[in-house]
Amino acid sequence: MEGQNGKQNKKFSLLKIVLLLPLIRFGSVVVAKPRTAKNLQVQKGLPFKIALFADLHFGEDAWTKWGPLQDVHSTKVMSSILDQDKPDFVIYLGDVITANNIPIANASLYWDQALSSAKNRCIPWAIVFGNHDDAQFTWPLEWFSDSGIPPLKCSSDISLSSGEDNCGFMGTTRLQLINHDIGSKTLSFSQKGPKNLWPSVSNYVLKISSSDDSESPVAYLYFLDSGGGSYPEVISSAQAKWFNSTSMEINPDSRVPEIIFWHIPSRAYKTVAPSGEIDKPCVGSINKETVAPQEAEYGIMNALEARSSVQAVFVGHNHGLDWCCPCKKFWLCFARHTGYGGYGNWARGARILEITEQPFSLKSWITMEDGSVHSHVSLKS
Amino acid sequence: MEGQNGKQNKKFSLLKIVLLLPLIRFGSVVVAKPRTAKNLQVQKGLPFKIALFADLHFGEDAWTKWGPLQDVHSTKVMSSILDQDKPDFVIYLGDVITANNIPIANASLYWDQALSSAKNRCIPWAIVFGNHDDAQFTWPLEWFSDSGIPPLKCSSDISLSSGEDNCGFMGTTRLQLINHDIGSKTLSFSQKGPKNLWPSVSNYVLKISSSDDSESPVAYLYFLDSGGGSYPEVISSAQAKWFNSTSMEINPDSRVPEIIFWHIPSRAYKTVAPSGEIDKPCVGSINKETVAPQEAEYGIMNALEARSSVQAVFVGHNHGLDWCCPCKKFWLCFARHTGYGGYGNWARGARILEITEQPFSLKSWITMEDGSVHSHVSLKS
Repeated sequence: MEGQNGKQNKKFSLLKIVLLLPLIRFGSVVVAKPRTAKNLQVQKGLPFKIALFADLHFGEDAWTKWGPLQDVHSTKVMSSILDQDKPDFVIYLGDVITANNIPIANASLYWDQALSSAKNRCIPWAIVFGNHDDAQFTWPLEWFSDSGIPPLKCSSDISLSSGEDNCGFMGTTRLQLINHDIGSKTLSFSQKGPKNLWPSVSNYVLKISSSDDSESPVAYLYFLDSGGGSYPEVISSAQAKWFNSTSMEINPDSRVPEIIFWHIPSRAYKTVAPSGEIDKPCVGSINKETVAPQEAEYGIMNALEARSSVQAVFVGHNHGLDWCCPCKKFWLCFARHTGYGGYGNWARGARILEITEQPFSLKSWITMEDGSVHSHVSLKS
Repeated sequence: MEGQNGKQNKKFSLLKIVLLLPLIRFGSVVVAKPRTAKNLQVQKGLPFKIALFADLHFGEDAWTKWGPLQDVHSTKVMSSILDQDKPDFVIYLGDVITANNIPIANASLYWDQALSSAKNRCIPWAIVFGNHDDAQFTWPLEWFSDSGIPPLKCSSDISLSSGEDNCGFMGTTRLQLINHDIGSKTLSFSQKGPKNLWPSVSNYVLKISSSDDSESPVAYLYFLDSGGGSYPEVISSAQAKWFNSTSMEINPDSRVPEIIFWHIPSRAYKTVAPSGEIDKPCVGSINKETVAPQEAEYGIMNALEARSSVQAVFVGHNHGLDWCCPCKKFWLCFARHTGYGGYGNWARGARILEITEQPFSLKSWITMEDGSVHSHVSLKS
């Protein structure tokens, strides 16, 4: 554990960003086609800071007083942290919305609300999906009793030739959400991954480049879709192969550090979880529940372990956990429950990552809604 | 229990049918607007026969050899029974398809296959939905392992402006299915009920009219949507009120017998279920599992009990039950598992209803795939 002051007064600046996607697959060979339209670049002499917003769960119980109010609270949490930490980049670590609570045909309204704090500050972002983002609407049983169904906002379903109202609420798909995220905002770095990985959509890699040379990578950020919602909670064998081939293609000698983001902890998290107090080598402040891992392990952990360049994995999903623990060659970390949506009343906050380029270092801490900071940890120094 | 020969050589004839829907609700008053385009009418001197096809579960495991083969078997069951009993009308009693097994964007392909036996014989039909008909596709976990996802038939999703393939399989909604059922076939008597009952869609009433007078009702057939799939397994308070107001409107003095159809047994079925052998007053041949009832009771049973005209309720859902038992003033009956799809290996068959007009009588038996008949019961004589 290493002390680190999260309250830096670094001026926010414009970013130059290089995207490595789209990755086009020819047979089993993945060819990275670099695009230079956007550039994610370290500023000379400054660390590169990332805020992880996990489990915002916007759109819960929109038909009650409690629901919309908690989204207001969540926006305050994010605004406070963004104004304090002034990150260069935000990663929305899944469960941005609680789609299974959203009784409208298009959930992108709530998606926009959840992302407005970063957008309003011109801070770029990327997303990975959680298990609630494209979940089908769950009708409350009590709506069928005498108290009845509250007034609903049903929209015309263009797939019905008659144009009649559709209150089916079958959900907004991952593709619809990510197209919405990418389409309308130049600040979004989200990508939809190769089609052969679908229904798993949020699989892509971003490069942070050196302050001296926008072509020279400081780190690769890998986003993997850990499923849930419309399909099982799992990282597929195909995704593991995609990670393998992509990383071998763009970072063959493992010289460039790699940092990994997805939503649902892999089963390996269970093996390193503290049993009670969070003691060294683990670092964190809450260990209030058992790890709720993915349904199966189909090779991603072996793929990560095979690369000396992998530094850490960051996940959300468990609102009552915020620890980092080492696991063999790299760290397994939880973010911190950021939203007032979702279960649990533990105080809200966000995990912050800080990357330096020469020498490369990766440090992290948690900034709370009230401005306090804790759980500083050096993940690579 | 009363003997009844199910093998009648009655010639199939054209039907005249009167539809009572659409029912238009003005405030709390339901006004029935009779339509005369179709007429469901008893033939002079002949009983009116209805075949109940329950739990066909078309479209299961379409990616295996076993899946399509069982749909062929189900079609044989229906064809055999239709050729033997020569019913005037077919009622598809829910779980026509297993939508949660159908990895294509539009499940109506399987819907058409399931209904082809009646359609090919020019026998009219009506449907109620079961809990599998609009269920969301459930991705098998093993598809994400090394064995991978089998080739899928993804269709263009018109709601995505980019027109890219969509393998989201969020399901085909009840509205889409019933529009398909009604739209393309003059033989379909299915109706979508009042919008204020949605997401519950298959709520409507059909009249069987007298051989002497097409305006004079012999019986009313009520179809109620017992939910499941995209929303809870329940008949709502609003549906119970709709039944109340509709039946009071069109049959105020309870003079005309009423017969009720839905998919999932109400909780009252549990109270009359035989504990082991099926002894009198119950009649049936299999009692192999416990009743799997709706999630709640919101008034439909009280509404039925309040009317002396209600004769019987017919449900599917439990594949291992085929009994009828009296419950207070009327009968609660299971149909018989007709499809090779769905759980259970009990021999397949169909419950047949036989209605006479003067005097009114309602008899029933079960015809099996092999032509044998059993479980004759007089439900009203």
